[in-house]
Formats: sequence, structure tokens, C-alpha cells
Amino acid sequence: MSAAPYEESHLYRLRHTAAHLMAQAVTELYPGAKLTLGPPIENGFYYDIEFPEAIKEADLAGIENRMRELAKLDMPLVRREATDRDDARRIIREECSLGQGEEVISYKLELLDAVPEGQTISFYEQRATDKQGKERLFIDLCRGPHVESTKEVRHFKLMSIAGAYWRGDVRNKMLTRIYGTAFETKDDLQGYLTFLEEAAKRDHRKLGRELGLFMFSPVVGQGLPLWLPKGTVLRETMNQFLRDEQVKRGYQGVVTPNIASIKLYEKSGHILTFREKLFPFMEDPEGETFILKPMNCPFHIEIYRSAMRSYRDLPIRYAEFGTVYRYEQSGELAGMLRVRGFTQDDAHLFVRPDQLLDEFVGVVDLMMQVLKRLGLNDYRARVGTRDPENAKYIGHDDNWRLSEEAIIEACRRVGLDYVVSPGDAAFYGPKLDLIIKDALGRDWQMGTVQVDYNLPERFELEYTGDDSKPHRPIMIHRAPFGSLERMIGLLTEQYAGAFPFWLAPVQVAVLPIADRHVAYARQVAERLQGYPVLGLAPEGEQVAADPGAWTGPNLRVSVDESRETLGKKIRENTKQKVPYLLICGDRDCEAGTVGVRARGEEADLGSMTLAGFLERIQPEL
Amino acid sequence: MSAAPYEESHLYRLRHTAAHLMAQAVTELYPGAKLTLGPPIENGFYYDIEFPEAIKEADLAGIENRMRELAKLDMPLVRREATDRDDARRIIREECSLGQGEEVISYKLELLDAVPEGQTISFYEQRATDKQGKERLFIDLCRGPHVESTKEVRHFKLMSIAGAYWRGDVRNKMLTRIYGTAFETKDDLQGYLTFLEEAAKRDHRKLGRELGLFMFSPVVGQGLPLWLPKGTVLRETMNQFLRDEQVKRGYQGVVTPNIASIKLYEKSGHILTFREKLFPFMEDPEGETFILKPMNCPFHIEIYRSAMRSYRDLPIRYAEFGTVYRYEQSGELAGMLRVRGFTQDDAHLFVRPDQLLDEFVGVVDLMMQVLKRLGLNDYRARVGTRDPENAKYIGHDDNWRLSEEAIIEACRRVGLDYVVSPGDAAFYGPKLDLIIKDALGRDWQMGTVQVDYNLPERFELEYTGDDSKPHRPIMIHRAPFGSLERMIGLLTEQYAGAFPFWLAPVQVAVLPIADRHVAYARQVAERLQGYPVLGLAPEGEQVAADPGAWTGPNLRVSVDESRETLGKKIRENTKQKVPYLLICGDRDCEAGTVGVRARGEEADLGSMTLAGFLERIQPEL
Repeated sequence: MSAAPYEESHLYRLRHTAAHLMAQAVTELYPGAKLTLGPPIENGFYYDIEFPEAIKEADLAGIENRMRELAKLDMPLVRREATDRDDARRIIREECSLGQGEEVISYKLELLDAVPEGQTISFYEQRATDKQGKERLFIDLCRGPHVESTKEVRHFKLMSIAGAYWRGDVRNKMLTRIYGTAFETKDDLQGYLTFLEEAAKRDHRKLGRELGLFMFSPVVGQGLPLWLPKGTVLRETMNQFLRDEQVKRGYQGVVTPNIASIKLYEKSGHILTFREKLFPFMEDPEGETFILKPMNCPFHIEIYRSAMRSYRDLPIRYAEFGTVYRYEQSGELAGMLRVRGFTQDDAHLFVRPDQLLDEFVGVVDLMMQVLKRLGLNDYRARVGTRDPENAKYIGHDDNWRLSEEAIIEACRRVGLDYVVSPGDAAFYGPKLDLIIKDALGRDWQMGTVQVDYNLPERFELEYTGDDSKPHRPIMIHRAPFGSLERMIGLLTEQYAGAFPFWLAPVQVAVLPIADRHVAYARQVAERLQGYPVLGLAPEGEQVAADPGAWTGPNLRVSVDESRETLGKKIRENTKQKVPYLLICGDRDCEAGTVGVRARGEEADLGSMTLAGFLERIQPEL
Repeated sequence: MSAAPYEESHLYRLRHTAAHLMAQAVTELYPGAKLTLGPPIENGFYYDIEFPEAIKEADLAGIENRMRELAKLDMPLVRREATDRDDARRIIREECSLGQGEEVISYKLELLDAVPEGQTISFYEQRATDKQGKERLFIDLCRGPHVESTKEVRHFKLMSIAGAYWRGDVRNKMLTRIYGTAFETKDDLQGYLTFLEEAAKRDHRKLGRELGLFMFSPVVGQGLPLWLPKGTVLRETMNQFLRDEQVKRGYQGVVTPNIASIKLYEKSGHILTFREKLFPFMEDPEGETFILKPMNCPFHIEIYRSAMRSYRDLPIRYAEFGTVYRYEQSGELAGMLRVRGFTQDDAHLFVRPDQLLDEFVGVVDLMMQVLKRLGLNDYRARVGTRDPENAKYIGHDDNWRLSEEAIIEACRRVGLDYVVSPGDAAFYGPKLDLIIKDALGRDWQMGTVQVDYNLPERFELEYTGDDSKPHRPIMIHRAPFGSLERMIGLLTEQYAGAFPFWLAPVQVAVLPIADRHVAYARQVAERLQGYPVLGLAPEGEQVAADPGAWTGPNLRVSVDESRETLGKKIRENTKQKVPYLLICGDRDCEAGTVGVRARGEEADLGSMTLAGFLERIQPEL
């Protein structure tokens, strides 16, 4: 037996009441404020309000205090039902307005108009007389339900403010949204705030800046990340790992443009099915219309179509790290988790029906290998199957049965836990999504595999069978990372920036204690990275030119030549979460050793030779 | 003493006369054809004509025959000058029209209107009475000069037809352009035609298709190449070589979006200076305007600007394989040599003035290393300096002197031949272009290095000097390949598709003679490529599972498992220009050997062990 849904819980009602309480505090503190909508949400509640003048985060404390005062008045939440629409309009005008005139209830009247004919129209009222004998009243158009009394709202906090368009439409007025949260116990609230604190420390936007991974620029535009040098290393290291794996598994790399004629998307059908995510079109002087590519599949299909294919050529597996652009409203953007341009580790497999199961096994196996390599070990699979009652699913029953069975059988063979989710298939075929639980217990939907009977049909794809007749291949779409941007966002939060050794942008930092140790520090770096360190030796010193020694393990090494104290150097490189710090002092220069400090370990590992160090980190190479 | 410029040569006049002769033939054969312009060009001449109905390449033979007939009439080319504009108009109407009415000379009247006031208006007339007593006449508005008589036009050929807009403007009518060529001697003409034949064999568009390197698709759009698997290997191999080199030279990789807000290009000034090459803008519902990126520099500048920089941080070298989009008219597109989307091996160096020379030396040295690795050894440098008389050059004289001297000194230091070309600098700084002569003696302008004082100024870039004051860095733009698309186009033609071993998409093809040799052939491939061959062994055979043996040199190896004869397999893999074919028969399976054939060598190299083969190709690894 599962727990009751959140929407039917006491906590949900509590948060709803907290939203009303906040609205009441606002009407008292900011006369003329126009209320719109204020629902409970996943982790709390919000209310969208048009304030007479802009408010700041600092103003939230005042509203919170007023809420506490109101809550203590122990006001019961009283449901009232209007006899008809005219009665409801009267209540809004005369009571909800609290005597402030027509203007403040304009949104409420609009909301009333949107209530379907025949539906009961209800209000929730809270009122009390305070110690000064003043009547405190709030009444709101609301379906409810609520808790019994405002005094239950004890453990709450206003979190933040944000802008939100009325009805989510950019052509409408921008409102102020106040986010808050409320819990049933003090511990629950405290636990949530601690979780947020921990999440904030791991926030990939903050760490992305501090660690020099990526940035956004207002003149480049929202949702368009620029990858800084260290982020680029991270990204390329991940890509190279996957590329190597894919080559071994018989994938072939392809590269396709970021734009295409609208004709391509008319043919694929995306012009209809994906319309709202497309960037504005570009019409050229010759009458051609181009679109930024929202997905790579039609390009790979064009490559498939560029030659005759025989049953012996299949499976064909085209892989591309393809950068795609999808239009999101600016309000929907969220760091690297939701951007407007991102790179998919995309591939499309063109397979015969008799190859579907094996290829699916191969794909799922690769995805599990990828997650293992990334250190993401807590995940489950969701198999989206067809709801046979729903008419949106196209294609033959036989195909659906074949592919749904193939997905489930593939999960079984590779030992992947899965849940079947009927009705979660794409309209063109079933799919498998991987859901990862991160270090803070949050779920992230990442990689995906989809079976597709639709595009092969639309593009009339064919191969010649061993019967010499034309047959239609099946397509598999798959992306183990999903989006590189999103995956790196997740990894940054998962590891709080302390990436596994193989991914760390800088793996080893060499720290000369004083200027006289710089030349030696550089020699150490050269041995580890396998090529000479750039730059001139400090005056009076000479870097030993010994190319024969450049046969290192190709580590990513930096030398900290800043003119800071050793303490400062250690702090800085620790903040940068470098896995190993190698400290070089007088005795090291003489003995040919380094003082080793490992990330996350309290004590030094002591002095060792480079060979000793390499032996120690052998498991990580 | 250099030869007279082409424009003043006899050959130039000869080709001009040939164009008139062609126009005369056309007016005779296609009454109603409207002539526009017909100039000599680099390798011949053309004439743009509006034909009453479309003509085909096959029609050129008829025009050519008529030209031969007319040439033999030994018509002198007679210059006539109009007394004034009205007289000129009369000559066009009454004489140039050849009695065909107003319509046919409409373009000529338009051209007459464009002749500047006060300029002499001249015509060239050629006439004779043929053996049948018929007068043959042609007169054209023309500045000349021409050769004495049409009979000098003996060694000529009409080459092709193409579409061309009147005055090059897409809004105007599409005309038919007939290309032809003419030479002074039979040998010259023959030499040129042989050259064209050789060039056609090497044509990268043809080879690109045959070798599976890249393709174009009409539904994707013109000028937007799709890289096929083998082309992708070529491209990534080149990129990886350069990336490794750049890491050693202290470059840092970055990745930036393919679009940006128009604000970025307003700030950079490209919105004005690069307007005509920009794709149509994309205006989003929130009022933001995006542009496809035509160049990477402003993005790298934004990265530079994202942090405080000190004199100790410089030089900073940001490198990106950045895909940019530039709008070209469809008529200007030419295979991979002129496309609408291409990838630059771009980098931007931010340097202090005292670092300019060293950095320039480093850049030029890298470019020479790249060309050497690509086997392009016949090249020269052109140093574009400022014309001090021209007002378009911005910036201080001191800066120009410093950077021009740095470029020239850098060429000297690395031993690069150069010519100085005053007035060829960009408006924002001097530059160095590398011009490569290919196997057919053609010049290709490829890599480039540019000094830039303008963008640091526009973006107000700064670093803190050792005097603790703000200073402005200098930027160097550089791209050794230039465009990856163009460079691979050049390499394909240079090598006629037989790429050097390190670049060959497939380096070794293993050819089992019969089905019973497939398992052995796969073992050979596994040893060479360093990982297991995919697929099931033929029935009754078992691939020896010996992961310990997978320590090969990571070659790119294919196994030809087609059910063809050995002869057919050899022909096919030879056509694919695979550097080495390893043939496996009964005796090889027993003795553990392979029969080696090297590309371009007549005789087999005979049987050898894998170790023996690897030793032989050691220099190429």
C-alpha cells in the first residue's frame, strides 16, 4: 500500500493555508496589492501578487512577522459557497476587496470568469478580532481544502521572490511571486532548511563559477552556457571516454550542421510535434527558411538515406555529440539543468527487427557502463509502454509488442531494475528512461533509449533483405548522458565539485614552497604530464632539458607559481578540489621526492618519490 | 622585372574578343537572346545572356561551331566612339539590336545609363560578308581593347553553363552564363584541358562521395555539409593532433554556443562590418534577437572578461574548434571550399605588448608544424601591412609599427619565406596569411594570423600590470587549418584521396580470401586495433577470446567480410585508397602470416608476420 498522494495530505492543506495567511499579511502591509493565484507546490507554496511598488527579499522578514502575528489569532478557515455567479461576483467586489475598491480584485474577477459553468464557487474566509479590538479579515476565492485554523501554521518560512507573468504568458504583466514553505513539525522544517543549505553548497551554478567550469554572459544571452577551460576539459574527457567505448561497440561518428532547411523538419514532422520548442525561423533572401536544429535524428536519417543499404550492412550505428537548440522561456531556465543550447551524446541505430533485442541489450549495457564510470550507482529504469486504449500511439500492434518485450527482456538480461509505466511511451514507440538518485536523495531523469517506428516510415527508409526485397529498418534513439550540460550539472552537485580523479580538470597540483623550488616543481610536472612545462625558468635557474624523461602517464598537472605562502597555495588548490597536491621543498629537491596530500584526507601522506606516488595512484589511472 | 599584368596582356584581349565572338554566334543562333556583360576572367571568359528559352550544356557544341565559322571570316575588331550619350543610345537601338527590336538591347541601355558622365563611350564592331554574300555583323557597347581580327581566336573551347543573377543581385532575373576559354597556342589550350581533367579526377566533391567522406542533402540545405563516418574520422584525427599540440603549447580549450544575442555583435561591431555575411536574425517572443555566430572571437572575449586578469596571467590562449555560419548566396557555394557552415580551428591569444613577438613566433611555428604534418610543404607567407595613406586603418602608429615588425621578425626567426603586401592589413591590425601551392600548382589561401587592437578597445579589456595599473592587452586571432571543411577539401585534392597513413580513415584492410579465413582475419584486426572485432564468427568457427592480446597499436582496421572474390575485394579497397591490404589465405592461417600490399606499389610486399608488418610500418605510426 502506498501513502496517500501529496495533494490529499494534511501537509498540502497546511501549505495552502499558509499561502492565504501570507496573502492576508500582504494585504495588510501593502494596501493596493492585487492578489492573483496562490497554490501549494512540491516543497511549499507561493502567491503571485501585483504589488503597488516593487518589493525586495529583505521585505520578506516583515511579511513573515505579520504572518506569525496573524497565525496566533487562531482564525478558523471557513468555507462559504456562493449561490450563483452573481453572488460570487458580489462577494469578490464587496468582501475580498476589503474596502480597497474595484482595482485590487481585478485578477480575481478574471479568475471567476474562468470557472466552468455549473461548478460550485467557493470562498475561504478567516477572521478574528485582535487584542486591540480591531477586526482582521481575509477572504479569497478558493476551492480549498484548508486546515482548521491559522494557528496550525507554525513552522514556516518565506524563501524568495521571483518574477512570473500573469498566466505564464510573456505578453501579460510581470507579477511578483513570493515563495514560502511550511511543515508540520519544527524538525521537518529544520531538516528541509538543512537540505537546502547542503544543496546550495553543491549548487552547480555556484561551483561552476568557483571552479571555473562554465559561465553565462548577458550579452551572449540567457540559457547559452560558455564552457571555461576547466569545464571544457571535463566535457572532453567525458566525450572521449564515451567515444572510445562507442568505437569498440561498432558505432560510427558523424558530424552534422546546427541548422537545416525547414523542409527537413516538415519531412520529419517536428515542425508540428515540436513547434513550441523551435527557435524563430530564419528566412533568407533566396526564399529558403532555416531552423536551428532541435534534434539530430533527421540528419542521421539523411546519412542513412545517402546510400543503398543491405541486410548485411545493419545494424548501422551513427553517433554524434550534437549541439541542439530548443527555445525555453527565460523563466524556465535553470543553470545547466535547463538551457537553450546543449550537446547530446546522441546516437541512432538502424536495425532489422531480428536485431532489436541484441541492440537494445547493447545499448542498456553501455548506459550502465557509463553510469558506473561516472560513479552514479543509485538509479532505476522506467520502461514507458503504450496505453492500448489511447489513440495517439501509431503503428502496428505487432511492432509494439515486439519492442516492448525487447526492452523488458534487455533489462532482465543486463540485470537492470525497472518499473513498467503504461502510457509513458512516446507516440512513436516505447522507451526506457534512467532515473538517478543523487547524493541528496533527489531524482534526476537522465539517459534515455527510444524505439522509433515513425521516422523510418516518414522518411521511407529501406534496406534490401536476404529475400532481395525492400524492408523497413527500426530506429533506436539513445543518449547515455542525455545532455552533457545537464549531466555535468548533476555531477557537480553529486560530487560537490570534487570530481573523481579521471574527470578532475586538474588532477595534480605541484606546489613549490619558495621560488627556488619552481624549477624542480616543473620537472615533477613534466614527468607526470609527459611534455615540457611552458615558460621561462626563474632567473638563475635552468630547467633540465631531458625530453627522454617525458614519458609520463599524461596526467593533467598544474604548477602553482603564484608568489603566495605555502599555506595560501594549499588553501587555494584545496578550494579548487584538486585530488593531489605535491609539495616541493628543499629536502624534496635534494632527495627527489614530493610531499603528498590527498583530497579529503586529514593527514599528509608524507614524502615519496614520483615512482612511489604513481604507484599509489595506480588504481585511479 | 615582373611580367605585365594579365589585364594588359595579349591573352586577355584575345579572350575578350572570344567573348564577343561567342555573343555574335548566340545572336545568330538564338534570335531574341538579350546580351548583358561578357568580360575576360582568370582562365577564360564568360558572357551572361538572357535566352528566349533555356539552353543546355549540349547546345554549346553548336555555338562553338558557329564561332569557328565566324572566326574564319577574319573580321577586324573596329573601335567606334559615340559623340555623346544620345549618339550612343542611337547606336545601341539601331545597330546593336541587329534589327531585332528594342527588347533585346534593354540590358545594354541600362549599362549605358551606368557609364559615368564625361567618360568616352565606345563600341567594338566586327563585320564581314560571307561566301554566300550575306552580311555577318556584331557590335557591342565595350571599352575594349581587343585583338586585331577574329581569326586570331583559334584555340578556344566553351566549357560550361551556369546561372547568374543580373548584377549579382538575387532579386533580379536569373541569366545564363556561358563559360569559355581561349589560348594563344594549341599546346596551351591542351595543357589547360589536361590540367582540368586531372583536377576533375581529384575533385573533392567527387572523391568525397566515392570515399564516403561527406555529403550534401537538398532537404538539409545548400552549403551545409554532413560528415559521413570516414570523413568524421579524418576530421577528428586532425583536430586531435592539433588539440594535443595546443595543450603542449599552453592553449586552453573552451566551448561556446553557435548563437548569441545581437547585443554581442553590436558590441563587437560585427553587426556593421560583417552585416552581409550574417544569417537572418531570430527574434524571440520575449523581444531578444539572436544571430547564428559568424565568428568565435566575441565569445572568447566574454570569457576573458569574466575574471580579473593580472600581467602574470598573460598570455592567455583560448582555443576552440568553433562551428560558425556565414551566409553565402547559393551561387557562390562550391563543395567544401565555400560553405555556409564550417568549423574553424580558432584560437585567440590575449598578450601583453612585450609578449607579442614571442607569441607570434609560437603561432607561426605551430602553423608550420601543422602544414608539415599535413604534408603541405610548398607554401609562402603574405604579410599584410597597413597603407599609411589610407584612413580606414584605426589605432596608434606605435602599435602598428610594433606589430608589423613583430610579424616580420617572427617570420625571420622561424625561417618562413614571406612577401610584404602593403594595404593588405585588416582595418584593425596587420596579418599573416599562408598561401599553399597544391599538387596541381594552384594557390590556396589557408591559415591566418591577425593582430587586433580593435576588439580589446571595443570591449575595454584590461589586465593589471606590475605597476598595479590597468593596461590593455593585444589580441591575436589565428587558425592554422583555417576552416576544417576547406582544409579537408584541399587535402582530398592534394592527395587525390590517398591520405597519408596517419590520416587515412581506414589504415589497414584485412581481406580473408574465403569464408573459412574470416575468423583468422578478425584476429589479425583485433591485434592491430587493440580491441575485439564485433559480430559473430561464421558458423562452425570460433574467434579465440584472448583479451590479453588486445594490445595493438590502435590502428583503424576493417575486415572485408563481403562475399566477393579476392580480386573484387582488392579492387574495392584499392579504390577506397586504403594504405595497406593484408590478405589472409590457408597458408597465412597456418603460418600466422599475412600477405601485404601497400597502396601505390605495383608488386606485393609478400608474406610476413604481424610483427614484421608492424615493423615495416613503424615510420608511419
